[in-house]
Amino acid sequence: MLLSRSGTKKHPEVTHSVDGKKLLKNFVIDICGCRGDWTPAAFIDETVSQIKAQLKNDQVVLGLSGGVDSSVAAMLLHKAIGKNLHCIFIDNGLLRKNEFDKVLVSYQHLGLNVKGVDAKNKFYDGLKGLSDPEQKRKAIGKTFIDVFDVEAHRIGDVKWLAQGTIYPDVIESVSVNGPSATIKSHHNVGGLPEKMKLKIVEPLKSLFKDEVRSVGSQLGLDQNILGRHPFPGPGLAIRILGDITAEKVAKLQEADDIFIQALIDKDQYKNVWQAGAILLPVHSVGVMGDERTYENVICLRAVTSVDGMTADWCHLPYEFLADVSNQIIRRVKGVNRVVYDISSKPPATIEWE
Amino acid sequence: MLLSRSGTKKHPEVTHSVDGKKLLKNFVIDICGCRGDWTPAAFIDETVSQIKAQLKNDQVVLGLSGGVDSSVAAMLLHKAIGKNLHCIFIDNGLLRKNEFDKVLVSYQHLGLNVKGVDAKNKFYDGLKGLSDPEQKRKAIGKTFIDVFDVEAHRIGDVKWLAQGTIYPDVIESVSVNGPSATIKSHHNVGGLPEKMKLKIVEPLKSLFKDEVRSVGSQLGLDQNILGRHPFPGPGLAIRILGDITAEKVAKLQEADDIFIQALIDKDQYKNVWQAGAILLPVHSVGVMGDERTYENVICLRAVTSVDGMTADWCHLPYEFLADVSNQIIRRVKGVNRVVYDISSKPPATIEWE
Repeated sequence: MLLSRSGTKKHPEVTHSVDGKKLLKNFVIDICGCRGDWTPAAFIDETVSQIKAQLKNDQVVLGLSGGVDSSVAAMLLHKAIGKNLHCIFIDNGLLRKNEFDKVLVSYQHLGLNVKGVDAKNKFYDGLKGLSDPEQKRKAIGKTFIDVFDVEAHRIGDVKWLAQGTIYPDVIESVSVNGPSATIKSHHNVGGLPEKMKLKIVEPLKSLFKDEVRSVGSQLGLDQNILGRHPFPGPGLAIRILGDITAEKVAKLQEADDIFIQALIDKDQYKNVWQAGAILLPVHSVGVMGDERTYENVICLRAVTSVDGMTADWCHLPYEFLADVSNQIIRRVKGVNRVVYDISSKPPATIEWE
Repeated sequence: MLLSRSGTKKHPEVTHSVDGKKLLKNFVIDICGCRGDWTPAAFIDETVSQIKAQLKNDQVVLGLSGGVDSSVAAMLLHKAIGKNLHCIFIDNGLLRKNEFDKVLVSYQHLGLNVKGVDAKNKFYDGLKGLSDPEQKRKAIGKTFIDVFDVEAHRIGDVKWLAQGTIYPDVIESVSVNGPSATIKSHHNVGGLPEKMKLKIVEPLKSLFKDEVRSVGSQLGLDQNILGRHPFPGPGLAIRILGDITAEKVAKLQEADDIFIQALIDKDQYKNVWQAGAILLPVHSVGVMGDERTYENVICLRAVTSVDGMTADWCHLPYEFLADVSNQIIRRVKGVNRVVYDISSKPPATIEWE
């Protein structure tokens, strides 16, 4: 006798799935008997004990980026091992306007042992003449390792490299197709542990982003670090299409700063998952008085998203966009035109490179 | 005795001036005693008589562009001299998608004596390798004259060149700084009369655009010609930044057609002064399935304006922009990202080149 069978597949974990959360809860809590009693406070207690037992009196180095993950990792380690944690925050010349100084100050308020390193010119030298996005990423990664290596050796007798790896990063590197070289080059520290012969400690590697934020909040981390939009490791280098110069970075920083500041001032920042300006390597005609101008174009990008995997372009109010566009054209020398990215991910991506 | 005097200056002719029209009306009608009895019908009667007296039985050639001005000029001359008017409509390969065929058909419905000339490849040859906007314009102007000259000679014994010059064109060429070479190169027919030793007839040169439209309407011209957005003489060549190829034109035509058709379908066309798509010579990253793409960016431009001298970017509905963006990315091969121009004129311009 032949039996005919049919099946169907549901993705309860996807944000848009109807009753997906309920289905998971029924399975995990009611059927499997999990208690669902995870709390940030309990996680912190447990992790701090583990770290103490694991690291003892060893010296640990950690590269801060100004972002949520590395900041929360630093706070957690600091709670466990205090002054044995040495944080390094490198100015790669590709950060937002005044970001280096602002972030350094906020870390010092937290009592972290942070060394700020101005390596702008080393990064610009490494990027000179490179236009290909992958080559730019590789050059930034290489310079980062060189600078970080020198700084780590200054500390002396470092045994551990701490990283702010979170669970989605882990998933990314064990995909069914194997770790992707393309994806890996996003991360600045690839190859660093081998070179420095360090052991790795990753206290957040079992957490999702929202859990990381809860832990950070419990640790007293400032809302302006916790609520910060994601910012790519290679920074403004992948928001300047084509080759990078200090002049282009300065121009883009001005435009980006006007945009981000307006988002904050007009209470739009929290409605946006990620935002920034992109400097396009094209010129367009304009008029200034009776003269024709022939200047650069700036693109504004702002998206809404739940997890960064898919994203919609953000419907910012027209008056807001008009105001930001006018400010940028009026205040940023060498820019006479502003466009707004109206593409969703997929098939476009959040970043242009 | 010393008298102190003060003055003030008002621009009643500017659209935004409060009571500007009233002030002009008081002066022109009440003080100067003008009657304000201009009607398109009277203008047509008078102009047709003048043209008959001036041109007698001479042969006249006119270059049609598909736009309002040359179309109304042709209708007026046709009414006066019938088959002695020879219209030439050249396909320069830089028109909108299917524009050549559609416009030819609509002219033939009107009884005009029109010859359509496919000169696409001549224009592409002339443009080969040129990236500078002014050089592109000059190459198009030169090819236009060459093609038009050959066609005009085929007619035999042509004495007159008719043009759709309107009053703002006249003002433009007698500016205080003298005729500008830069402005002149916008117009395709510069240098043509000298080369062909033709006399010029310009029946609309005392009219403003709205008067031209009234005359055209009285002459029975179709609303889809009368209501057509302005379109630059060099066509899509100045909406493709960088050098021109037939492939790029085809790509831009597809995107432009999706945009314009959507404006018509969603009843937005009439709210817009001028609209079009621009092909940017930059590539950006996208995702399609599990693959990364690296493709072109299309910019959409739509402005509102009263006279074209100043213009605001048009606040098209978000849903409309999202729909057009999705359609373009899905349907136009080689495009993975769409942006919207949010710059006003001044200091930006309506066109990019």
